[in-house]
Amino acid sequence: MGTTDTRAVSKRPGIAPPGDAVGAEIHGLMTELFPVLRSLTGDGVRETLHRCAEWAPFELFEVPSGAAALDWTIPDEWTVREAWVAGPDGTRIVDVAESSLALVSYSTPVRARMSLADLRPHLHSLPDRPTLTPYVTSYWDPAWGFCLPHERLEALPEGEYEVVIDTTLAPGHLTYAEAVLPGEIADEILITSWCCHPSLANDNLSGVAVLTALARHIASQPRHHTFRFLLSPGSIGPIAWLAANRERLDRVRHGLVVSCVGDPALPTYKRTRQEDAPVDRAAAMVLGAIDGARMLPWEPWGGDERQFNSPGFNLPIGSFSRSPAGQFPEGHTSDDNLTFVTPAALGDSLTRIVQILDILETNRVWINTSPFGEPQLGRRGLYRALGGAGTTGPMAMLWVLNLADGDHSLIDMAERSGISYAELRATADLLAEHGLLTPRS
Amino acid sequence: MGTTDTRAVSKRPGIAPPGDAVGAEIHGLMTELFPVLRSLTGDGVRETLHRCAEWAPFELFEVPSGAAALDWTIPDEWTVREAWVAGPDGTRIVDVAESSLALVSYSTPVRARMSLADLRPHLHSLPDRPTLTPYVTSYWDPAWGFCLPHERLEALPEGEYEVVIDTTLAPGHLTYAEAVLPGEIADEILITSWCCHPSLANDNLSGVAVLTALARHIASQPRHHTFRFLLSPGSIGPIAWLAANRERLDRVRHGLVVSCVGDPALPTYKRTRQEDAPVDRAAAMVLGAIDGARMLPWEPWGGDERQFNSPGFNLPIGSFSRSPAGQFPEGHTSDDNLTFVTPAALGDSLTRIVQILDILETNRVWINTSPFGEPQLGRRGLYRALGGAGTTGPMAMLWVLNLADGDHSLIDMAERSGISYAELRATADLLAEHGLLTPRS
Amino acid sequence: MGTTDTRAVSKRPGIAPPGDAVGAEIHGLMTELFPVLRSLTGDGVRETLHRCAEWAPFELFEVPSGAAALDWTIPDEWTVREAWVAGPDGTRIVDVAESSLALVSYSTPVRARMSLADLRPHLHSLPDRPTLTPYVTSYWDPAWGFCLPHERLEALPEGEYEVVIDTTLAPGHLTYAEAVLPGEIADEILITSWCCHPSLANDNLSGVAVLTALARHIASQPRHHTFRFLLSPGSIGPIAWLAANRERLDRVRHGLVVSCVGDPALPTYKRTRQEDAPVDRAAAMVLGAIDGARMLPWEPWGGDERQFNSPGFNLPIGSFSRSPAGQFPEGHTSDDNLTFVTPAALGDSLTRIVQILDILETNRVWINTSPFGEPQLGRRGLYRALGGAGTTGPMAMLWVLNLADGDHSLIDMAERSGISYAELRATADLLAEHGLLTPRS
Repeated sequence: MGTTDTRAVSKRPGIAPPGDAVGAEIHGLMTELFPVLRSLTGDGVRETLHRCAEWAPFELFEVPSGAAALDWTIPDEWTVREAWVAGPDGTRIVDVAESSLALVSYSTPVRARMSLADLRPHLHSLPDRPTLTPYVTSYWDPAWGFCLPHERLEALPEGEYEVVIDTTLAPGHLTYAEAVLPGEIADEILITSWCCHPSLANDNLSGVAVLTALARHIASQPRHHTFRFLLSPGSIGPIAWLAANRERLDRVRHGLVVSCVGDPALPTYKRTRQEDAPVDRAAAMVLGAIDGARMLPWEPWGGDERQFNSPGFNLPIGSFSRSPAGQFPEGHTSDDNLTFVTPAALGDSLTRIVQILDILETNRVWINTSPFGEPQLGRRGLYRALGGAGTTGPMAMLWVLNLADGDHSLIDMAERSGISYAELRATADLLAEHGLLTPRS
Repeated sequence: MGTTDTRAVSKRPGIAPPGDAVGAEIHGLMTELFPVLRSLTGDGVRETLHRCAEWAPFELFEVPSGAAALDWTIPDEWTVREAWVAGPDGTRIVDVAESSLALVSYSTPVRARMSLADLRPHLHSLPDRPTLTPYVTSYWDPAWGFCLPHERLEALPEGEYEVVIDTTLAPGHLTYAEAVLPGEIADEILITSWCCHPSLANDNLSGVAVLTALARHIASQPRHHTFRFLLSPGSIGPIAWLAANRERLDRVRHGLVVSCVGDPALPTYKRTRQEDAPVDRAAAMVLGAIDGARMLPWEPWGGDERQFNSPGFNLPIGSFSRSPAGQFPEGHTSDDNLTFVTPAALGDSLTRIVQILDILETNRVWINTSPFGEPQLGRRGLYRALGGAGTTGPMAMLWVLNLADGDHSLIDMAERSGISYAELRATADLLAEHGLLTPRS
Repeated sequence: MGTTDTRAVSKRPGIAPPGDAVGAEIHGLMTELFPVLRSLTGDGVRETLHRCAEWAPFELFEVPSGAAALDWTIPDEWTVREAWVAGPDGTRIVDVAESSLALVSYSTPVRARMSLADLRPHLHSLPDRPTLTPYVTSYWDPAWGFCLPHERLEALPEGEYEVVIDTTLAPGHLTYAEAVLPGEIADEILITSWCCHPSLANDNLSGVAVLTALARHIASQPRHHTFRFLLSPGSIGPIAWLAANRERLDRVRHGLVVSCVGDPALPTYKRTRQEDAPVDRAAAMVLGAIDGARMLPWEPWGGDERQFNSPGFNLPIGSFSRSPAGQFPEGHTSDDNLTFVTPAALGDSLTRIVQILDILETNRVWINTSPFGEPQLGRRGLYRALGGAGTTGPMAMLWVLNLADGDHSLIDMAERSGISYAELRATADLLAEHGLLTPRS
């Protein structure tokens, strides 16, 4: 603990890959949490975060409604007891008890009888995809409504409908959870995800679950950096967290937003606003080894990375996903369900994120202690003593020695040499053991 | 007008597009000016500039022969009264009264009778294109000559010819014209063209006429920069102007040489010596939207841009043309006539130049007044309050807010985001109206 | 010779191309030196260097065994009197008198009789290429052995073998040779090659011979830089030289390792660790004119460039070869013989190296003395006085004048303009003669 590295010359162990079974475990956690009615605030979020705290040392924080947070104000807390519409014959045509998507998020209370014509503006559907229920919110404008398949909406008979929305929109709290895992240094890696969506599996229960499994895994590993994991409602959550932590943001050296990590697409990484931060370069190396993986440029559109990368903060927080939020047709509909996400994809996402973090944990600048000419490797048992035709040589060792001038990190060396980061890192550790490298202080 | 911007926060109105009829008007001006016998100096230039001064507030300047101008000396003034050659039968075989191209520019006076053999070295033609008259000058070496189609030259009979060149080459003046249109700030945009060619339409009566129409149009518009328009004889004109204005060149922030803007080719822009000055980047955006338009690198070859971009001045003056001077077969021959240039091409050139200038007029660096996290756009009526599936978002607004850190101009934002300059500029104006942006002082 | 240029404004003459016969002469020198038994140390190296000193003013240096040199220690000197193996019937099956490749370099003394089974581990061959003898060394581990074609090894009968290796490994000296050719300035161009291989023609007797011919040629030329030529045993030679010259390495401004320059492949240049040093840019221009020639990036693998480009020295020493060492199948086998190298390739290598050095000798930064506008070239007889259709212009002159702002070298100008270095250099000399350019002091 502390701000200085007390074992500077020792190897940094990095992060071991997660086990093979973790994808199925993550899918199990998602299955458990899927039906919970989550929104920006409320008990559904608390229930979700408490369950995550059984996996990793998450602590819950409550921010009161009405509190100022940067340019925003924390909204009232939303509580849902029941919400349904009954048709002229008394049958419930839509009911939040059946699907958390059925109720427009943050709907105001209603208890009324009305004609279909009056009800109709409050019913949301997708005419082009008539079997799906859309996901609709009205956080900042008081409104109410229900979501249902268009084919069901089209079949509604004329007559009098009974509408019951037994909700409360009143001062309360916004809830977020943090897990902090101290490392050798106080510099932090921040991993974050949003937890405000109801029954939508890929966007973003997958992010919540993979982040939780990641926190559990990192907790089991030796750490160089301090790791901070954040689960919070989208946009307003990071805004509340940034407002509360404004004085200590200079400790955040690297970070990732994790979202939409369970669908079958290949990994996608979106760069930070800085475009070539260490996390961007680490991700480029990991994804560069996956044929078809995508590196996207920064754009101020997407998920919570928008807040961290706003110009006043400009934190180097990249975004890891498979199909990015808003870029897959199942998104924000009832098709984004537990069959859309697979244990294999969830496990692969966790593995790739661990690979990126492993690079950030172990990247360092080495200095060649024998920089004038090549050191005699043979004398140290580091080289073949008998040269001859047809042999190949210790390329990685020579690259590390050649670039260990105090200006090149292991990432720099990997980018310039074309040799894998893993090989260069192991090589540097071996050379350091023989006293040929010393870390830059 | 002063040197400070007194309405910094207000919108910069930019420059409206010219009307549809302007191409025909420009062609009309060219038709009027086409027969005038122009050269480096003399009354033909004065007549041309006086006519332009009826369109826009041009003022004529006279620089005396013999005056030093940078490395050069202002030449004697050349006056032509008559110039012709009569054949053995008394018929005039070539006469400047018929075509201003007939006489080698700056021909010394002659009044003589001579054999065809003695006359022959003074006759210029194009053997490969026997029906065309070439354009030939001898500004700096005393000489005389006539230009005619090769087929006519070939048909000349033996016998005695009478040569009359009633010209004067004597101390006088070099004439150029300036129109200055003050703006909010003293920083200048300099637009310049050469006016020394006789009856050659594209090179460069088109430049003279389009520049004149541009000055008339800019005079009708609100202006941020001060605009300066210069019409002068090629090379020696800019040299005389630069010598006379040497102490105030630091006011010139952007500029264009306008030439060869009436032929049917697509627009071409040649970069400044600096290669990425704002005018280069503005032109790249305008021409980037035209399939087939060409961006050329700097080269110290071409027209008057050579003087402005000489290393001692290094002014950011780009070059706008269609077929650049010297790069179309009609150039410097009688084929470069009024049928080679079209009202449509002239009007399009004016429109594209206005688009470039509009960017230079409105480009500025904005600062986000709420840079910590995204500002709450919905509260200000700037965002859809009701999110949901299938909607698209205010990308331009988020890009402007994200990059408004005091380091990025609107041009920078357009280049990085891929969103059109026009949309970003309108977006920035809207955000500034809502107090979310303030200009960098 | 001093450290200042006393004829700054005069033309730098550069280096004339070598004559056509030089390729055959180099091949003749190689033929003479080919059979000599060379190694890291010993009389074979001395004999080779003495012969080179008949061509150019090489001086021999002796470094004692046991001396420290950077991270290394100078090894014992190796002397070979005889070395052979006789079979059961007394016939010599391998003998260093027949081929210098037959004996593992640095073999310890042996005088013994042994079975084939005991002898076998000491016999080196190439099973995949059974007719060739490999080249094997054991410099740093005491060992002994012989090299022979695999087909001969396979045919050896059982029985008792007699092994005689009459060598001495004892304190002595390591030998290298330097030729220094003073120039106008003390800044040096260092040309180096390794001379430690026995009968291997391309790797690297070709480098020794071409470097020797180059030194002879440069000695006949006026010189701006001081030239230093170094022939030394691979790796340990440069290490000894660098250790001995550590205090004066700041004089080394450019350099080349010359090796493997006689095979039929096209020229190859490997960049310095700095990647864009002047020698890299000069080589890129020379090789850019040869279709199929290769520019390789820096890698810390190959030949002696590894020592000069180690991070502590970081000298801008590039590598010129045809097939680089270790990258042609004939290398380190008996196929790398005098028929593998051709007079044409040797002569072409010398010519290309001279072209690179000629650029380094003549590259300089010029300053336009008339930088405001274009100078009037016609008045100085530098331009056509009579302009007109169809003429072309003095592009090179205008490029040089335009970029002669004190920041651009001739190499910069060639890279930006696309005009050949030779034309720009001649143009600059002409302009300097007319007072339009002055060298940057």
